[in-house]
Amino acid sequence: MRMEITNEALLAQRVNVGDISRRGARRHPRKTSVIMGERRLSYRELDDLSNQVANGLLALGLGAGSRISVLGRNSIEFLLLYFGAAKAGAILCPANPALPESDLQYVLNHAEVNAIFVDKSEIGRIAALLPQIPTARHLFMLSTDSTLEWKTLHDLASGQLKTDPNVLVGDRDVAMIMYTSGTTSAPKGAMLSHLNVTVGAMHNAFAGEMTEDTIATAILPLFHCGQLSLTSGTLVRGGTVVIMDGFNPYLLLQSIGKDRITWMFALPAMYRTLLAHPGLDDANLSSLQFCLYAMAPMDHATLRQAITRLGVRFALTSGQTEAYPPTVVFSSEYQLLKEGPFWGRAMPLVEMAIMDDDGTLLENGEVGEIVYRGPMLMEGYLKDPEATRKAFAGGWFHSGDLGRVDEDDMLLFVDRKKDIIKSGGENVSSIKIERCLLSHPGVTSAAVIGMPNERWGEEVIAAVCLATKSPPSQAELIAYCKATLAPFEVPKKVIIYERLPQTATGKILKFEIRKEMQKLLESLPGVSSNN
Amino acid sequence: MRMEITNEALLAQRVNVGDISRRGARRHPRKTSVIMGERRLSYRELDDLSNQVANGLLALGLGAGSRISVLGRNSIEFLLLYFGAAKAGAILCPANPALPESDLQYVLNHAEVNAIFVDKSEIGRIAALLPQIPTARHLFMLSTDSTLEWKTLHDLASGQLKTDPNVLVGDRDVAMIMYTSGTTSAPKGAMLSHLNVTVGAMHNAFAGEMTEDTIATAILPLFHCGQLSLTSGTLVRGGTVVIMDGFNPYLLLQSIGKDRITWMFALPAMYRTLLAHPGLDDANLSSLQFCLYAMAPMDHATLRQAITRLGVRFALTSGQTEAYPPTVVFSSEYQLLKEGPFWGRAMPLVEMAIMDDDGTLLENGEVGEIVYRGPMLMEGYLKDPEATRKAFAGGWFHSGDLGRVDEDDMLLFVDRKKDIIKSGGENVSSIKIERCLLSHPGVTSAAVIGMPNERWGEEVIAAVCLATKSPPSQAELIAYCKATLAPFEVPKKVIIYERLPQTATGKILKFEIRKEMQKLLESLPGVSSNN
Repeated sequence: MRMEITNEALLAQRVNVGDISRRGARRHPRKTSVIMGERRLSYRELDDLSNQVANGLLALGLGAGSRISVLGRNSIEFLLLYFGAAKAGAILCPANPALPESDLQYVLNHAEVNAIFVDKSEIGRIAALLPQIPTARHLFMLSTDSTLEWKTLHDLASGQLKTDPNVLVGDRDVAMIMYTSGTTSAPKGAMLSHLNVTVGAMHNAFAGEMTEDTIATAILPLFHCGQLSLTSGTLVRGGTVVIMDGFNPYLLLQSIGKDRITWMFALPAMYRTLLAHPGLDDANLSSLQFCLYAMAPMDHATLRQAITRLGVRFALTSGQTEAYPPTVVFSSEYQLLKEGPFWGRAMPLVEMAIMDDDGTLLENGEVGEIVYRGPMLMEGYLKDPEATRKAFAGGWFHSGDLGRVDEDDMLLFVDRKKDIIKSGGENVSSIKIERCLLSHPGVTSAAVIGMPNERWGEEVIAAVCLATKSPPSQAELIAYCKATLAPFEVPKKVIIYERLPQTATGKILKFEIRKEMQKLLESLPGVSSNN
Repeated sequence: MRMEITNEALLAQRVNVGDISRRGARRHPRKTSVIMGERRLSYRELDDLSNQVANGLLALGLGAGSRISVLGRNSIEFLLLYFGAAKAGAILCPANPALPESDLQYVLNHAEVNAIFVDKSEIGRIAALLPQIPTARHLFMLSTDSTLEWKTLHDLASGQLKTDPNVLVGDRDVAMIMYTSGTTSAPKGAMLSHLNVTVGAMHNAFAGEMTEDTIATAILPLFHCGQLSLTSGTLVRGGTVVIMDGFNPYLLLQSIGKDRITWMFALPAMYRTLLAHPGLDDANLSSLQFCLYAMAPMDHATLRQAITRLGVRFALTSGQTEAYPPTVVFSSEYQLLKEGPFWGRAMPLVEMAIMDDDGTLLENGEVGEIVYRGPMLMEGYLKDPEATRKAFAGGWFHSGDLGRVDEDDMLLFVDRKKDIIKSGGENVSSIKIERCLLSHPGVTSAAVIGMPNERWGEEVIAAVCLATKSPPSQAELIAYCKATLAPFEVPKKVIIYERLPQTATGKILKFEIRKEMQKLLESLPGVSSNN
């Protein structure tokens, strides 16, 4: 039962993403909330500006039900729009501003956006696209400085009241639509509620062991759920966020010393770059305490070096947009105890299990699909009830990842479910073959897929990029695989790429490869392994 | 907007208090969840038993909408019923089993309970009360061993399925009704939703800096929101709870060493008792890391001694049932920096402000009512829309406490706005005690106040004027109160006045009495009630 209740009570009890900045402003108004370069905002300033953005949006009729696209690299303005849109009750749709026109057009039309906020550098491109997006009525720049032609977010906010508009939103009302990177299919719009986003921020604060004293980086794109949710976690705990526009090891090392950064989030490759950087020895890293990584486990040699050189605790989180976003953490105390593709244990409000194809939950040791329950799970896919139904079949969210749980109740990632190739009656793990290829010194990146084949059901095919120095031939690579893999695991064909199609975070887009491969295979047979 | 969604999705996304045990069982089934004496349950056992309780309740028709009273001292069975009732979708109504019959009868009838679970020692008393509670259809003992006459919780659970009944509950459906003393003598039932209780557990895990390795005490009564929510916080983080039936310094010291307790929660007076205990020197306290206290600040001398002798960090949390329950934390790093009635800063999802009588929010330094916003706020008072409306007037929850915020954004408690005395962890209504005193033929007027007291937090003190004809003695008045009031409600001292300070219209000025009492207490001890 839910009792009849007044609007005043609902307002007091509400869960709204914008309240993250609001609570911070009440908790310690003069404390620094965000830093970017020489610019810094107190919590009071962050909240005042977010309120002005919210009131500006409402003045244009961009309140409840409206959809607002943000196409921006990292900036303070991105966060102002994030909190401002939530306070106005509007739905934010972040996307990578570097997406090709066709993809942007698809996403903006699919989300039926009413307003677009875009970086100054991209505004010409987006303006040219506007006629193709009939729902879009407004176009603004995210930048601080306006031009004669285009207004900015600050123009929109200018002169507006600094008080929260106190819009009533339901806990499960959609706060954001985030398009999944779609390594296996066309992007789907995950609808994330105010509750989802708030739980995600709390989970990140837990996994990252954040406190009021945390001074955390925001290096990875804020238009990605991982960084945006970690930054929300820092702010929900009352810490300070140091925003950077991308990973620059020199600037990062400088900022750690200058801004007294205690906490950072980066990808394994970035940590490797940092450790190899000539400026490391002279950098002042005394403030740094905790490093989070994601996307892939780090090998023990790198980890050990990182722990020693940086003098910090390390942890790995994994998850996905639809389970907004961290679901499991491989915490610092286990980092050097267990090596391999460990993902760790479920977050406080996450239930994680392993399920077979019949919907039966499996015991430790057995491989199956990783499934989740909990209030961080998205409300559904926009305009796709069938995909939503499938995603939640049997009362669990289906991650599409295969995993198993070891004897210490720790989750190991096995493969993407869709990346399992069924060839000659065998289940072939694409990751295993990719690892084999990557262990060859002449291979710089590799993606293995299955393509329909009359004889094998699916045929194992590898797409690789080669080192410029003494690149191996396709036949050499197949021979190399034969030496370590089972016969059915050896790629039937190896195709050489200049560059593999990938997302902004470096996730290889196998569905793109599959599409291209389809065409390629018709004209170019590649080198067959003859078995 | 909330999209149309299937029951399967709702089940996957649900927030249910029972999922705390469920997630733990999935996360690390063999890990110890609760210990009491020699008895210990793994997370799997805790969840299996809770599921059996849930299925047993459902078999009796005690599912959604049913109200289940628990009148028990601390036990593992208390927690099984807590999780089991939530899983069944029923509403749990915990109350102090030591309440006088008249109060129990009021609460059980007001909540219209359908089943009562009670300690073995109290079952006779409650059975005698049953005819006065027409809605109650079932009476069970909480104990493990049954009698010929009465069935136990385990009898109810026996033979039931160990699988979660997967009942669909809404996030804001009521999970518990907890009674608080109001300004009138009649207690009010705070309706707490699954979301409220879950947020409370997360807040306690933050404030208590809990991790998976936390081994925490449960000494204070689980029928109180403070201990129950802290215990939920320990379990939501995957830690272990060591349950004790009350505070016994000897047993506690023994358990810290034996069970490797890392974390404890107690009242300031308990810490003082512990520090003065002869067994302290020989106790093995090496596992202890963190101590939480509540109800009242500790003086610096005691704190310093505690920090040194116990070798731990200390923090203070404050809050109330309706803001379920911790709202602010005075964290460990500030403990010795600031002395006085400091309450600290708001929890991650709590917005705290100071409001004047006109509803205006005040600046730092100004005294006003402490008001809150956030998803931890109760859904309302049971069957009391008018009190609910008042509590949320202006879109803020009114705590009834007066406070101010200092120059470092730290909240200080100033005074109780309403006439509630907090004594020994209980909310005591001064009006109820005044009515009792006034019912004595020898008393012509009475005012009851709380005065600061090291042992009780606040001490209940009565100021009375007596009839000229056969006036009662102070001891007689205390004995008179003991006959009808709960032990914690009986005035510790009775002071006799010629005339109570009052306004022209006869309204007694308690503020004046408090001032005078301060002086009086220094010279005149009054008559103690010896408990």
